[in-house]
Amino acid sequence: MPRANVRDQLIHSALEVFHARGFNGCSVQDIVDSAGVPKGSFYNHFDSKEALGVEVVRAYTALVGAYVVEAGAAEILSGPGTPLERIRAYFEAVIEQNVSCGVRKGCLLGNFATELAPHSAEIAKAVADALDSWSAAVAKALAQAQEAGQVSKDADVSALAHYLVDGYEGAAARAKLIGDRTPMDEFIRTTFDFLLA
Amino acid sequence: MPRANVRDQLIHSALEVFHARGFNGCSVQDIVDSAGVPKGSFYNHFDSKEALGVEVVRAYTALVGAYVVEAGAAEILSGPGTPLERIRAYFEAVIEQNVSCGVRKGCLLGNFATELAPHSAEIAKAVADALDSWSAAVAKALAQAQEAGQVSKDADVSALAHYLVDGYEGAAARAKLIGDRTPMDEFIRTTFDFLLA
Repeated sequence: MPRANVRDQLIHSALEVFHARGFNGCSVQDIVDSAGVPKGSFYNHFDSKEALGVEVVRAYTALVGAYVVEAGAAEILSGPGTPLERIRAYFEAVIEQNVSCGVRKGCLLGNFATELAPHSAEIAKAVADALDSWSAAVAKALAQAQEAGQVSKDADVSALAHYLVDGYEGAAARAKLIGDRTPMDEFIRTTFDFLLA
Repeated sequence: MPRANVRDQLIHSALEVFHARGFNGCSVQDIVDSAGVPKGSFYNHFDSKEALGVEVVRAYTALVGAYVVEAGAAEILSGPGTPLERIRAYFEAVIEQNVSCGVRKGCLLGNFATELAPHSAEIAKAVADALDSWSAAVAKALAQAQEAGQVSKDADVSALAHYLVDGYEGAAARAKLIGDRTPMDEFIRTTFDFLLA
């Protein structure tokens, strides 16, 4: 029977390797080397590199993304400050998380969206689900902001939440491109000091 | 001496193959097969796959992107309508261009930003230059909108232009992910019917 800790080690190592080098930029051999396990054991745990990719998206959402989607969702809805202050703090926390991993790695969800979507329906679905869950948390907080009179009653909070998450992903992609966090910081400033101010 | 049309054919074929499958999702062999030229001739024209990648970014900016950056820049500054109407028409044209290539291919600039930035300084610079040139055109039009009283005098038009281009790229990435243009159409609606309305 496969040992569970080997499976977890493969997911953890693959997350690091995929995040740094992209899904197509590494091989199963690279992943087992990084995990320090024999290649033969890989297929005891995963049917394919793609199946591992789906688990990596879930792990990124749950671990790095724990902050974003789970703990983040609680903070964004009931932390201190006004609803808009909480949404700003939430995106700022996402950006600090991104920077702490290394701005050159970008957001794994955005990376996989552009690299893998046409090639892997399963990975695409896992990434789309993660982005939808993230946008749903932001939409709830925007509804609170609307209720509090901070955002116009005319706003479509669901569309606006997707817009902000997409905008963050675009800013994270350019930050990755230039190796500089400025696009993400300007995303915050333009959103909260100008467009929604 | 290498024939110029072989070089152009390699760039054209590589653009198609990179756009559809990603830079790391194909080999030099795939590109020469697609171009219908012998592999030996590749290295008469390019030192490496990366050197070809830089030329592909330039070709995408000049061909597909001609619309966006060159012709687009003229239209956005002096076409019919108010400055904000012209900016909207410009992004709508970019979206139609994207859809006509196949929404699942995404924007080559955004794809390369997330796939290649940490691995190829030369390709990263070519992509960053293309995005900067695009944002500069949008910033000029936003300055016209500011002059016309359509956008607040408080706006940092350069930051706002980058914000819109990044937002478009994020929306294009999600459109690619889900195989549906809706995120790009909602980018237009949220930007022009709500945030800048």
